[in-house]
Parts: sequence; C-alpha cells; structure tokens
Amino acid sequence: MAFTEDVFHLMNIVGLLAFAITGSMKAIKEGLDLFGITVLGVMTALGGGITRDLLINTVPNALRSLSDMSIALLGVCIAIVLYKVSKSDLQNKYYILIPDAIGLSAFTTTGAIIAYSADVSFFGIVILATLTGVGGGLISDLLLGKVPFILRDDFYASCSVLGAIGFYIAINSTENLNIASAVCAVVVFALRIMAIIYGWRLPKFS
Amino acid sequence: MAFTEDVFHLMNIVGLLAFAITGSMKAIKEGLDLFGITVLGVMTALGGGITRDLLINTVPNALRSLSDMSIALLGVCIAIVLYKVSKSDLQNKYYILIPDAIGLSAFTTTGAIIAYSADVSFFGIVILATLTGVGGGLISDLLLGKVPFILRDDFYASCSVLGAIGFYIAINSTENLNIASAVCAVVVFALRIMAIIYGWRLPKFS
Amino acid sequence: MAFTEDVFHLMNIVGLLAFAITGSMKAIKEGLDLFGITVLGVMTALGGGITRDLLINTVPNALRSLSDMSIALLGVCIAIVLYKVSKSDLQNKYYILIPDAIGLSAFTTTGAIIAYSADVSFFGIVILATLTGVGGGLISDLLLGKVPFILRDDFYASCSVLGAIGFYIAINSTENLNIASAVCAVVVFALRIMAIIYGWRLPKFS
Repeated sequence: MAFTEDVFHLMNIVGLLAFAITGSMKAIKEGLDLFGITVLGVMTALGGGITRDLLINTVPNALRSLSDMSIALLGVCIAIVLYKVSKSDLQNKYYILIPDAIGLSAFTTTGAIIAYSADVSFFGIVILATLTGVGGGLISDLLLGKVPFILRDDFYASCSVLGAIGFYIAINSTENLNIASAVCAVVVFALRIMAIIYGWRLPKFS
Repeated sequence: MAFTEDVFHLMNIVGLLAFAITGSMKAIKEGLDLFGITVLGVMTALGGGITRDLLINTVPNALRSLSDMSIALLGVCIAIVLYKVSKSDLQNKYYILIPDAIGLSAFTTTGAIIAYSADVSFFGIVILATLTGVGGGLISDLLLGKVPFILRDDFYASCSVLGAIGFYIAINSTENLNIASAVCAVVVFALRIMAIIYGWRLPKFS
Repeated sequence: MAFTEDVFHLMNIVGLLAFAITGSMKAIKEGLDLFGITVLGVMTALGGGITRDLLINTVPNALRSLSDMSIALLGVCIAIVLYKVSKSDLQNKYYILIPDAIGLSAFTTTGAIIAYSADVSFFGIVILATLTGVGGGLISDLLLGKVPFILRDDFYASCSVLGAIGFYIAINSTENLNIASAVCAVVVFALRIMAIIYGWRLPKFS
C-alpha cells in the first residue's frame, strides 16, 4: 500500500513538472514575457486541479499547499533553461511525451478519486476526472487565444474519459478504491501511449 | 400549479436540446473532433447553469444529476445525425430559433428563481439570471476562440436582462414566486421573438 | 485609523471607475454593442474580485452589494460620454494611467488582506492579491479574443506580485495588518508609476 502511494505520488510530481515545462515552452514560443511564461507554466500544471476544486466547492489545494506550486515553478525554470540551451521547444519529443502521459494518467486518477469522494453522479466523475487531466492545457490554450487542441485533434482527453469510465466500473464492481485507481491510471497511460504510437484520431464530421 | 411546473420542466428540456444542438453544430462547422463537438454541445446546454452554481457556491447540479447531462448528450447525437443528413447547419432556421428562444426563457427564469433564493442584490439577480440564459453560448464561443456573439450583436442577452428586471419588480410587488417566474418567462420569450422578427439591435458607439 | 480606512475606500472607488472606463473604452473600440460594452466595463472593474471570491469559496461581494456594481455602471456611462465627446479612447493618457495605478494598488491590497484572512499559503496570498489586481483586465482581454496584455508586455502584474510579497514580509515581521496593507499599496503604486515613467519591461526568451 505504501509502495502504491509512493508510486502515485511520484507520478504526480512527474506530471506537474512535465505539464509546467510544456506550458512554459508554449508561452516562450508565443513571445510572452517572464510573467506570462510563469502563468502559463503554472496554470498548465495546476489549472485542471484548481478548476476541479472550484466545481466541488473546495478552496483549491494549490492555494493552500506550498509543494505543488514549488514543483510547477521549478518546471518553469527548467523550461527556460532548456529553451536557452537547446533553442528548440521539445514538443513531440518522446522525452516530453512520456512524462506528459504519466501526468495525464496521474491527474485523471487523482480527479476520479476526489470526484468519487464528492458524491457526484457518473457524469460528474467522468467530467471531473477528465477536467483534472486536461483542464490545465485547455486553460493555457485559451490564454494564448487558441482553440484548445484537445477539442480539435489527437486522442488525448479521450484517454481520460475512458480511464474514468474504467474507474467507475471498477469501483462499482470491487468497491476497492486502490483497484479502481490502478485501473484508471493504467487505462489512461496505455491508451495515451498507443495513441501516440499509432497516431489515433477521433472522427470529425465537417 | 402542477401544470405550471410541468410546462416549465418541458421548457427546460426543449432548451437543453436546442442549446446542445446549436453548440454541437458550431463545433462541427469549426472542424472540431468528436470530443470537441461533445464538449461544445454539453457546455452550451449546461455552461450557464454551471457558472451560476459556481457563483452562488453550490456544486453544479449538472455534476450531481444524470438527466440534464443525458439530455445534452442526446442533443449532441441529434446534431451529428442532422448534420450528416442535411449537410447544413440549421442556424437561423425558425425550427432552431424558436426552441432556442424557449430555452433562453426557461434558463433565465430558472436562474432568477435560484438567484432569488440565494440572497443576492438586485444586480445579483439580473447577473445570475442572464448568465444562466446566455452563459453556455458565451463559453462555447470562447472555446472556439471567438468574441462571444452576445457581446457584439443581436438583441439576445438584453431579453434576459429585461426578463430578470421584470422578475424583480413582480416578486417585490406580489411576493408570489409563480407570478414573478411567469412574468420573467413571458417577457424573455416575447422580446426574443420580436427581436428575431424585427431584427432588433442594440446601439454601438464606435 | 478611520482616516486610513477612508483613504483606502476612496482608492477602491477611483480604481473601480478607472477600470470600468478603460474596459468600456476597449469594448467601444472593438465594435461591441451596448450590452457588450457594459459587460466589458463591469467585468474589468469587478472580475478580479469575483474570481478571487470564487477561489476562496465565497459568494462574490459584487453579487451581494449594490455599491460596487453601481460605481462600475457609472464608469461605463462616463466612458460612453467621454468617447462621444472626445472621439478618442484615452488609452495611455496620464489622467487614465494614474487612476488605473491607484486601482491596481487598491485592488491588490484588498486581495492580499482577504487572502491573508482565508488561511492560504504564501503562494496563495501572492496569487489571490495579483488576481484581484489584474484579473478583471485579463478576463476582458479574453472576452475580446486577445492574448491578455499582462502576459505579453509591460510591468503591470509584476507590481502586484512584488506588492503581495511586500505584504507577506511585513505581516510576518510586524503582525500588523495596517502596516502590511500600507506597504503593499505603496509598493504597487510606486512600482507601477516608475514602470510607466521608465518604460520597464520583463525579459522574453523567444
């Protein structure tokens, strides 16, 4: 049990770092200044959890704890240094895509666990889990004046949706939160990696 | 009384369907994928009520009940089928404008009733009623990277504002919630239909 | 003490007016209609405080009191009259930049005081104080489909960040809320005026 918790905790840290780095990189490329880069990095890392906490009527953990924000700020510093050194934005590189997939998996699972304890419906669990996973990226795209990429392309939010459905089925058949969390994390991560490898896309109708 | 409640309940369902259909249609036209289409349809239908619930510090009903979300998802499916069949987006057609006006009327009235019970000021009632009516469309425009059309054109949000003022006057003169609700619903619907027929516009100053 | 409170109260009124005027002016220039102009003016003035109240789980004061909203609406009217008379938008004029700096100072300080009483971390105080100061402008830029200017340019939000840090140091060394508030207000105002005079900018890395 302690081992599982440690793994999960580590996944969350990897995710915070990866999200903060990708968010800051986007901001640097768009010509934002140091404040804008910091806001984009922090919001990409923490925005999903903050939105979820707002929806279940809690003061966001990001405002109360020091650790999440510190990790996000570390990610912002790493992004600036990496950009200065490499002069490229690392997007679509495997060493950023895999940590990003770990983050998506960890955040979605955290969202599902918190939603489950907040007494919401099936839809509520799916929405809050998905929002925790993808909300930060969505907010940072909006701040840059772009249509959020998760609405247009790629098989990304869908991994969270399917992971949350897996969580719901598992929790209702086993009533064991550890099993349900593991199912959610594995489904999200496995689907995301397969989506990257095979270039999965959702259909469009226009 | 039971009859009035049934009418109001029916108006809300018509509104959820109409809003979900118009939101999904916009998303299809903008080239979003299936996830984006679903998010846009659902947010157009439920976004106003969710924002209102956030502002009065309640866990949004949309996360707790199954019915609203199910109706919104049904609207998304209808939009996709209609688009495949008709290859046109139905905007500005009377059979979408009239259900949309019914939805605006029902949502604004729901918003006014909930705001009234939340102990806010006159401005609070007007803001929350209007936001319940037009917030979903505003959010979906923002997600598509557009300036919300209710801020630029048309006599749309103004119907909600005037309906909410009618609600406020009626509740303070009669102290009867049923009468005030009926006044609100009739004012919003009548003004909106007249705005469509006569092409009303608000002044600009630029 | 009563004198200090009066000064602070006056600063808040000046800020609400200045923010509402600049927000409405932006909306007029962008060709929004009367409803859009009102929404932009009101949100620029009240949006920061509303977002802060949402984050600390309170029904926004703007929905409960009549005064803030009335002042904001007065600012909208002034903006329309000024625009009709002068046919110019007053941006970057000293008689709008100085009231705007007073508003930034007053709002940031209000945000810091409220955050302090809400039992959040150091980061929570900085985020909520800054958001109270710059959130309204950020929201109005987003509603106009623009990348918020505070993320791209100028030394504006940075004044709030440094003022909030000053507040945090002062409150922890003196435990006197009046002193900490005065430090915050003076730091924000002085930095903002110097930023305007000397054209300060934050670094970019792209």
